[in-house]
Amino acid sequence: MNSLIVDEIIKNALLEDGAYDDITTNSIINGNEICKVDLKAKEDGVLCGTGVFKRVFEILGGAEAEFLVKDGEKIKSGQIIGTIKGMTSTVLSGERVALNLLQRMSGIATLTSKFVEKIKGTNAKLLDTRKTTPNLRILERYAVKIGGGENHRYNLSDGVLIKDNHIAAAGGIKAAIEMVRNNVSFVKKIEVETETLEEVKEAIDAKADIIMLDNMDLDTIREALKLIDGRALTEVSGNVDLNTVGALAQTGVDYISTGFITHSAKILDLSMKNLVRL
Amino acid sequence: MNSLIVDEIIKNALLEDGAYDDITTNSIINGNEICKVDLKAKEDGVLCGTGVFKRVFEILGGAEAEFLVKDGEKIKSGQIIGTIKGMTSTVLSGERVALNLLQRMSGIATLTSKFVEKIKGTNAKLLDTRKTTPNLRILERYAVKIGGGENHRYNLSDGVLIKDNHIAAAGGIKAAIEMVRNNVSFVKKIEVETETLEEVKEAIDAKADIIMLDNMDLDTIREALKLIDGRALTEVSGNVDLNTVGALAQTGVDYISTGFITHSAKILDLSMKNLVRL
Amino acid sequence: MNSLIVDEIIKNALLEDGAYDDITTNSIINGNEICKVDLKAKEDGVLCGTGVFKRVFEILGGAEAEFLVKDGEKIKSGQIIGTIKGMTSTVLSGERVALNLLQRMSGIATLTSKFVEKIKGTNAKLLDTRKTTPNLRILERYAVKIGGGENHRYNLSDGVLIKDNHIAAAGGIKAAIEMVRNNVSFVKKIEVETETLEEVKEAIDAKADIIMLDNMDLDTIREALKLIDGRALTEVSGNVDLNTVGALAQTGVDYISTGFITHSAKILDLSMKNLVRL
Amino acid sequence: MNSLIVDEIIKNALLEDGAYDDITTNSIINGNEICKVDLKAKEDGVLCGTGVFKRVFEILGGAEAEFLVKDGEKIKSGQIIGTIKGMTSTVLSGERVALNLLQRMSGIATLTSKFVEKIKGTNAKLLDTRKTTPNLRILERYAVKIGGGENHRYNLSDGVLIKDNHIAAAGGIKAAIEMVRNNVSFVKKIEVETETLEEVKEAIDAKADIIMLDNMDLDTIREALKLIDGRALTEVSGNVDLNTVGALAQTGVDYISTGFITHSAKILDLSMKNLVRL
Amino acid sequence: MNSLIVDEIIKNALLEDGAYDDITTNSIINGNEICKVDLKAKEDGVLCGTGVFKRVFEILGGAEAEFLVKDGEKIKSGQIIGTIKGMTSTVLSGERVALNLLQRMSGIATLTSKFVEKIKGTNAKLLDTRKTTPNLRILERYAVKIGGGENHRYNLSDGVLIKDNHIAAAGGIKAAIEMVRNNVSFVKKIEVETETLEEVKEAIDAKADIIMLDNMDLDTIREALKLIDGRALTEVSGNVDLNTVGALAQTGVDYISTGFITHSAKILDLSMKNLVRL
Amino acid sequence: MNSLIVDEIIKNALLEDGAYDDITTNSIINGNEICKVDLKAKEDGVLCGTGVFKRVFEILGGAEAEFLVKDGEKIKSGQIIGTIKGMTSTVLSGERVALNLLQRMSGIATLTSKFVEKIKGTNAKLLDTRKTTPNLRILERYAVKIGGGENHRYNLSDGVLIKDNHIAAAGGIKAAIEMVRNNVSFVKKIEVETETLEEVKEAIDAKADIIMLDNMDLDTIREALKLIDGRALTEVSGNVDLNTVGALAQTGVDYISTGFITHSAKILDLSMKNLVRL
Repeated sequence: MNSLIVDEIIKNALLEDGAYDDITTNSIINGNEICKVDLKAKEDGVLCGTGVFKRVFEILGGAEAEFLVKDGEKIKSGQIIGTIKGMTSTVLSGERVALNLLQRMSGIATLTSKFVEKIKGTNAKLLDTRKTTPNLRILERYAVKIGGGENHRYNLSDGVLIKDNHIAAAGGIKAAIEMVRNNVSFVKKIEVETETLEEVKEAIDAKADIIMLDNMDLDTIREALKLIDGRALTEVSGNVDLNTVGALAQTGVDYISTGFITHSAKILDLSMKNLVRL
Repeated sequence: MNSLIVDEIIKNALLEDGAYDDITTNSIINGNEICKVDLKAKEDGVLCGTGVFKRVFEILGGAEAEFLVKDGEKIKSGQIIGTIKGMTSTVLSGERVALNLLQRMSGIATLTSKFVEKIKGTNAKLLDTRKTTPNLRILERYAVKIGGGENHRYNLSDGVLIKDNHIAAAGGIKAAIEMVRNNVSFVKKIEVETETLEEVKEAIDAKADIIMLDNMDLDTIREALKLIDGRALTEVSGNVDLNTVGALAQTGVDYISTGFITHSAKILDLSMKNLVRL
Repeated sequence: MNSLIVDEIIKNALLEDGAYDDITTNSIINGNEICKVDLKAKEDGVLCGTGVFKRVFEILGGAEAEFLVKDGEKIKSGQIIGTIKGMTSTVLSGERVALNLLQRMSGIATLTSKFVEKIKGTNAKLLDTRKTTPNLRILERYAVKIGGGENHRYNLSDGVLIKDNHIAAAGGIKAAIEMVRNNVSFVKKIEVETETLEEVKEAIDAKADIIMLDNMDLDTIREALKLIDGRALTEVSGNVDLNTVGALAQTGVDYISTGFITHSAKILDLSMKNLVRL
Repeated sequence: MNSLIVDEIIKNALLEDGAYDDITTNSIINGNEICKVDLKAKEDGVLCGTGVFKRVFEILGGAEAEFLVKDGEKIKSGQIIGTIKGMTSTVLSGERVALNLLQRMSGIATLTSKFVEKIKGTNAKLLDTRKTTPNLRILERYAVKIGGGENHRYNLSDGVLIKDNHIAAAGGIKAAIEMVRNNVSFVKKIEVETETLEEVKEAIDAKADIIMLDNMDLDTIREALKLIDGRALTEVSGNVDLNTVGALAQTGVDYISTGFITHSAKILDLSMKNLVRL
Repeated sequence: MNSLIVDEIIKNALLEDGAYDDITTNSIINGNEICKVDLKAKEDGVLCGTGVFKRVFEILGGAEAEFLVKDGEKIKSGQIIGTIKGMTSTVLSGERVALNLLQRMSGIATLTSKFVEKIKGTNAKLLDTRKTTPNLRILERYAVKIGGGENHRYNLSDGVLIKDNHIAAAGGIKAAIEMVRNNVSFVKKIEVETETLEEVKEAIDAKADIIMLDNMDLDTIREALKLIDGRALTEVSGNVDLNTVGALAQTGVDYISTGFITHSAKILDLSMKNLVRL
Repeated sequence: MNSLIVDEIIKNALLEDGAYDDITTNSIINGNEICKVDLKAKEDGVLCGTGVFKRVFEILGGAEAEFLVKDGEKIKSGQIIGTIKGMTSTVLSGERVALNLLQRMSGIATLTSKFVEKIKGTNAKLLDTRKTTPNLRILERYAVKIGGGENHRYNLSDGVLIKDNHIAAAGGIKAAIEMVRNNVSFVKKIEVETETLEEVKEAIDAKADIIMLDNMDLDTIREALKLIDGRALTEVSGNVDLNTVGALAQTGVDYISTGFITHSAKILDLSMKNLVRL
């Protein structure tokens, strides 16, 4: 993840927030005032987004953020995690956009780390989905990785996932996989969604690379894994929450995916405090 | 809210999701297949974002969504709330982006409506903040209104809010308000953040249009309102959640603002079900 | 005003002017030639736009402008107001765009200052309008301020102005103000346009924050101000020119707005002279 | 001139004006109200920009403008020149941007036509320059043509004009023209700026296609034309105003160029009047 | 491939070609003239790009193309392959951009089909590479498929290819594959480039999904395939041309990739002929 | 040619190639590794595009290219022509885009130089056409110049070329030229396409600035040139290839244009070799 996409996100966010003309700050602060302000955690969690946070002030110009903590490290409520130093007007005009991004990414990393904690000791890995915030996917997938999860396909163009409606349209799993194999670049693995053991068998026969077990109960999942027996990678999906994820992981499945970590994570509360004029 | 900004959001989201080349769908579905699919609620809530949802399919082209429920109406788990009809490839390739937007907006409207429910019967109104998802503010503010809340300033350029750091830099509330009054368009109301009764008095003397009572306890808030006595609009901020909002409203304050409804709302679960080929 | 919007304006203007391939300059000047050239006033006026002018050469790269005069200061015909130094090719290829911007902004500042001069000694302040050059509003509003004027609302989204057609549609001033009060963020002041004393009374009763007196003669304006008696801010609009503005200001109105200063200002004549190769 | 560039100008202008969220109109007018409004001239002039005006409402959607007068025709103060019909919200939200464009273009066409009137009966043609409003050049050049003028080069990339600084850098007119002839596409005519008769002779000898006579008095111009004697096209530039243009044209020069018609034209006053709800 | 990306390519190409102001056509053809013109092949080949060609005229507006031949079908020199009908100005102003795209895509499809013809009867499939024309990759990959080839990874973000420099940096093939396996989404196949049989063995041991045999002679390739023995997909790369591709395919390799079909294909000569005014 | 347009081309190409997230490189190379790699010619030719190549790494950041050879100089197979030094991740992620641009531009320069070689000793100059790669015209025209050719008009808006269809629509060459002369800026030369000697005579009579002799045999060309006798510049077009161009030039024509050098040049093979970690 470099600045090619991220700069566009930040510039648009600064425009959206009217940072080209912060009428309050510009009335009070002239261009020569310099300050230093702390970045402080207001709850426990996993920090994520320091690079993006720093970039906000670079793009506005005249201030610079430094962090005492790296992406992926745990932070405690009350902890000073960094400082921003430079033109007071830049600090104040960039504060909200910088925090909105950092808090959201840290919120996702924090929630992800809680899921990952629950499946420690198993072979299962936690996956994100495409249920991300529109136009922030690159940041949210990064946050999932930082939180200890792994990434599923990026989008419709870069990975195959054959779902129920595709199967229905193709007239069965076998036909669907064959159509995909004939049309899609050979570098792509083929994943198919299954809802019954019958479908799992079809997927095995059709040599799917990855079999998703969708909305199955624990017994059915175990049965499915026995049928598959290592001939495909396996992914559990549906009804995944902090209460269920442990038991799901215990089945021996390879991957567990959940949209919850991106579409419903609350932010991690962080704030800029103790502004001192220099 | 018309298509000038929204179309850009949707087009970028479709590009982000690779909808220009849905390799699974395009391998299986040709351009002539037509279908109809239901949009179904999977939990109770307030629907929001129907216009944006419809626009996704208009932009992709070849399919059309119709809703049985309007923005702002309550929906029940299991309820069919609309249908999408048209080219199967458009339906499948646009599904995720359309749902990501609709679920997020409905999630915010639903959470907002819960806060609003808690302050029913008082004079207080619920406000959003600038703690919105970067580059989706226009949609999220709309969702707050649909949920029964009201909007605070859009951004740094269109409204004045004098905060602690501004006050410190100006050398006091009075000086800060005067600097703003001299520099900012006369069409803007001037709001100032206060943390003590002392500051409230200063704000009254300086004829602030709106006085924010930040992180005060209930007694202090009541005291502040007495001091203000209708000479300014009043806004409470800080420590606002579903448990506290009712008591805050009972104090007689005019407005209560909270970032929680936009930065930490979970989505409302909705899905496309029962695809039938036509 | 920072570079977020201004850079886009400048880059587009340089592209429009073909500065990516100045065929004359590129045929004659190679990349190593360095020069120094003066920026000279060809008529008296108020300078405005030095930041934008400098930015043109920064964006093209390889040359730098320095000013001896600041935005808002008076300049005299014949006065050297700055110098540009650097790659001759950049100086020549950027000259026209840089001057087009500086001359236009200085023209607006100069004309504004003439209006402001006429109302000196009164309480009235001069306001701009939305009658600005499409896509240069941010620069033109800045020029109005530099010339001694003040800014009205930025646009349709950031300020309220209820006009005759709104009043007709709402069924009266009272109804219109109530509809706006119910729908628009509480941080916005409500301004209403009135054409008769009857309407002024209605606006007072409906507690408009700002009452515009549109196209009234001096006697009617004085009558209206008596009726309003400080209960709203007042703005005069219509038939404002250098001959009438003094008398209008004498009425005691708070603000006088005119589109003339932005839509019909002639430029201030400036030129680059005395190029010396270094 | 088709919509490829113009649509971008209009969309940006509508965004700049906040037409995505006209808070006044949207509070009062719902999406179903329909109206009809007249477009009326408030002073005499030449109409220009009807296509752009119409396009504003097409882009916003839901309203349509029709004109009774064509680009280039004369209009009289008080004359109804067209009507806009459709959704009231679109009419009101698009009014300002549409008028800002139409008034500016008509202002340029009107002023141009006054210059052209002064040179009627001579062979001279009036030319625009690159002293146009940044990012509106395509519209302003069109307005010059509609007003009876002709267009000079579009920009630095599409035409050659060797100026004093180029000549100095090249070491003389002859050298400059040779360098350009060796480097620039053969489809370009070569124009050179001259300030003395000496330079005119050099330009003739170097076979310039066009010789610009810059800031010369009438006698010198006549002398220069005699020297040139049809061996190059001729253009007079400098000190061109409504008082001088006639005499300049009488000299027999081919072209007279002036930036005044684009950089200092006042707008032509037009307005939308008599809104009737349908 | 839908219009999301393609429309941007076409609009930019029309702007690049100055189709917003075709000064020749606009001087001669007014907006009311209608015509019909044939699209004719001037050499034999495989047609590709009909959708893009049609879209050029839709975007300019007022003319429509219809084809008698579909993408992927063979055409003969002299054959009429379609007609364009509509506004003469649109037909003439859009002609060059439309042809530039169609000829380029058809050139690639034609050259690809020649390679594919050479490997008929073997199991090998022809692959494209990332050696495509910057910013036209989506069109060129489509042309390769239409010509009978298959697509390799789209770009650096959507597929893994471990090359010699990666291997050197990682300290060996095994280490490199492990690093990738730990960091990259599990939906990606892992391909590794090998130059010696030693490296092939390492790649097999590390369970690479795809093994590229880079610049090997036929004997080494055969040896490598024997070693691999179906445990990975195989791709030959390097020294692939119309003379060598047949023998390479005979080795039994799965895929043969070549940049030549995209970076060095000549266009297929097509032209618009027989314009008739209607 | 400066960075105004070129940066957009490069940024889009890097986005297209997924350089914002090079999953292979990012798995193996961390941000601290530094390397040096040679740029090596794999065939003989003319180098072109060094500025663009360097800019790719500047935009990605952290690496820098230096060349031992300048644009337009001949290079030999096996020759080291430059080095790239800096962050290994930048070097590897930018390699393909940088090479795709450099190879394409060098390919065009090389092919152009072969045509130019064939016409050495004559007065004729080689011209490009508008048959360039969509959205890369600025680079390809530059490559033609570097290869020793000259540029024809840039696009439809910056030069006049009256073709057969224009002539038919206007009702003859004379009428067409008059219409253009009345409508197009006087700085443009007027070129007209002729296919017969009859048309050549008409073009002379109408005082065309440039007469294109389209698809004529050598005798007819010689005849045409005799008729024209220096009264217009002359351009031969059609059937131009490396075999015919010499004889065409011998006729004494001024210019020979061919699309082949841009639309059908194969790339010049260059590669990055000998990566050494520093």
